[in-house]
Amino acid sequence: MKEIKGGVTAAQGFYAEGIAAGIKKSGKQDLAIIVSETPCQVAGTFTSNLVKAAPVLYDQEIVAKGTAQAVVINSGVANACTGKDGYEICLRTAKATAEGLTAWRSEDFGTIDPEAVLVASTGVIGVPVPVEKIEEAMEVLCQWAEDTPEGGAAAATAIMTTDTKKKEAAVSFTLSDGTTASIGGMCKGSGMIHPNMCTMLSFVTTDLAISSGLLSEALKADVKSTYNMISVDGDTSTNDTCLLLANGKAGNAMITEKGEDYAVFCEALHAVNESLAKQMAADGEGATALFEVIVDGANDLADARTLARSVVSSSLTKAAIYGHDANWGRILCALGYAGAPFDPDLVDIYIESEAGSLQLVKGGMATDYSEETATKILSESAIRIRCDLHEGDISASAWGCDLTKRYVEINGDYRS
Amino acid sequence: MKEIKGGVTAAQGFYAEGIAAGIKKSGKQDLAIIVSETPCQVAGTFTSNLVKAAPVLYDQEIVAKGTAQAVVINSGVANACTGKDGYEICLRTAKATAEGLTAWRSEDFGTIDPEAVLVASTGVIGVPVPVEKIEEAMEVLCQWAEDTPEGGAAAATAIMTTDTKKKEAAVSFTLSDGTTASIGGMCKGSGMIHPNMCTMLSFVTTDLAISSGLLSEALKADVKSTYNMISVDGDTSTNDTCLLLANGKAGNAMITEKGEDYAVFCEALHAVNESLAKQMAADGEGATALFEVIVDGANDLADARTLARSVVSSSLTKAAIYGHDANWGRILCALGYAGAPFDPDLVDIYIESEAGSLQLVKGGMATDYSEETATKILSESAIRIRCDLHEGDISASAWGCDLTKRYVEINGDYRS
Repeated sequence: MKEIKGGVTAAQGFYAEGIAAGIKKSGKQDLAIIVSETPCQVAGTFTSNLVKAAPVLYDQEIVAKGTAQAVVINSGVANACTGKDGYEICLRTAKATAEGLTAWRSEDFGTIDPEAVLVASTGVIGVPVPVEKIEEAMEVLCQWAEDTPEGGAAAATAIMTTDTKKKEAAVSFTLSDGTTASIGGMCKGSGMIHPNMCTMLSFVTTDLAISSGLLSEALKADVKSTYNMISVDGDTSTNDTCLLLANGKAGNAMITEKGEDYAVFCEALHAVNESLAKQMAADGEGATALFEVIVDGANDLADARTLARSVVSSSLTKAAIYGHDANWGRILCALGYAGAPFDPDLVDIYIESEAGSLQLVKGGMATDYSEETATKILSESAIRIRCDLHEGDISASAWGCDLTKRYVEINGDYRS
Repeated sequence: MKEIKGGVTAAQGFYAEGIAAGIKKSGKQDLAIIVSETPCQVAGTFTSNLVKAAPVLYDQEIVAKGTAQAVVINSGVANACTGKDGYEICLRTAKATAEGLTAWRSEDFGTIDPEAVLVASTGVIGVPVPVEKIEEAMEVLCQWAEDTPEGGAAAATAIMTTDTKKKEAAVSFTLSDGTTASIGGMCKGSGMIHPNMCTMLSFVTTDLAISSGLLSEALKADVKSTYNMISVDGDTSTNDTCLLLANGKAGNAMITEKGEDYAVFCEALHAVNESLAKQMAADGEGATALFEVIVDGANDLADARTLARSVVSSSLTKAAIYGHDANWGRILCALGYAGAPFDPDLVDIYIESEAGSLQLVKGGMATDYSEETATKILSESAIRIRCDLHEGDISASAWGCDLTKRYVEINGDYRS
């Protein structure tokens, strides 16, 4: 497996674009497309929120059928809590996309059915999507879509809301028959991010030939250790969506069982998803530092994940990271209220960064550490807290960011 | 039932005091005492955190026996994560208190056994309590303790940490035999506050004669709808403690069963606890507004509480309250991820304050409300969000506060 440049257009046969359709008041890019030369196997995971945005309900139906060829995404408004009109807007958006691609790009993509178009939205809740603007913008969007890094980057830019950076990742990998395949993705997510499909949209494409069932199984397993392990503010959104499309352009023999090639694909998928998840955590609203929590020495994976998520989600720990304060009591406290069993008297806690490593806690009590060294370690832009439970050999990681005054500023006045 | 002035000294036969013992670097008051003329029935509830501070472990043993006569409380250091030394410090503190009271105030309190002294601590985790300072301060503390509103107020001041205001409440009530009894309390709590015994210390005293079993039952039931329904930042502390002492000085016939008098007492206990809980929420670290969430029209009390707590704990909703922004999408979203069932298409949402009332959502969708009116309502210092599920007739309330830049400032640098 090798890291490569690009995002959703890194795999063969995928085109993308992003433009400003006038949905955002700011005039910034707000409409993106991903389209494959040929129909794809598709898998998806969606928000666990009981209040689901219209595009989530719409996409769930398409994903259940297992194939799609394009995804169209708007930022600016979420199309959530918009009643029956919201679903109508999804249908109109898909229809406009299918018609646009068929009218202007049939030489590249053939004739596209509206039911092969997935739809995603992100932004303010409760405001209808101005679907006429999407319809008007479709000619340019379809005509401009290109299978280049620039096309992928434009799409990654157009799906941003309060994100400060576009987020892309891609790797290539080699199968047992010597075929090289690629997988790449883009995502957005900055606030309202919490385990179980955060307010994040993530789109991953691969040219691998793989059965729909295995594609779905690989995605569902991998989100548990990637997207579901990040937290910015504990709020699980109405729109969270992760879509994975596979068009088979790599030319490998279709993967239909869990052998060596499936394992290689899962590893590559994990690399892309973990990179995207970490980019989201690092770009958490107002964040000045990426904050990773590793729980080592656990007896049980679910417990280790629960403990890691509890620390990464603790407002007090996050504020201490912002203050470069080695307040290990808050870390131990957050482990304690997580709801997973462990022996507080066995716990060791370390802080780690580019500036070094330091043990703060040994057997549940403070070591005689230097506050000066601790502050130096915590002043880096990527901080790791490692908690060793000394009970078993299972580990879990979670990612988040510090809690800053800027977070409050952003969210005290998001809609204006 | 009638609201009366005062706190822990409002009930007959209770004395209190608060002084500066030199535990806090700032030189502020940091040591408090509550003592009864006669031994009391005692009930307590404690943190659900797996990491329990030494005083919690110590008090749980005493509360299990059912009687006590004094409580001594220090602020500044929490005596949590202090190993075996922490427990020794509790024993020494109790011994010094018992000896001090017996030496200098035996005419008021008789001879006090160390095992009749409860101990509580609040402040920084992982730092040992300077017990010598407590021992040295005991003579003054014991000699000054008085059964006046001033004594109660001094104690309420000395238990503060990042609190900006002391918190007291008291009511009197009349029993079926014509006896008047009183109940009063004080508490502290400002950060690390979350359902299931927040970092809060609460001390409530009554002159009612009531059996230890019923006292405990009344307290355990009432915390569910009061202290466990407040949240400042989602962090459950290692030290949370609520103690309730009853000395029988009112002279009523001992309450030993759940009749009319027990009901009157429960109502009075609830009034004091709810007042203290709301005072803590309003004084949440950095808060500019008390934020109440009422879930109406539920089918199930546990579900209604879960939903109310989810909204009151949502960082995004709290930041919107700070920004006076009627971002109802975040409210509906927080209901949706709470984990309790309801039909999003039936939900109505209202905002209410001294400035008026406004319906934001009807049947899961926005009403045509005036943003100007909404901002006016949300600019008050006490805001209520009311969510009607239209499914049943059960209600629950939760209390919290807005999320502000000041919260981040306080917690980014708490220890310095």
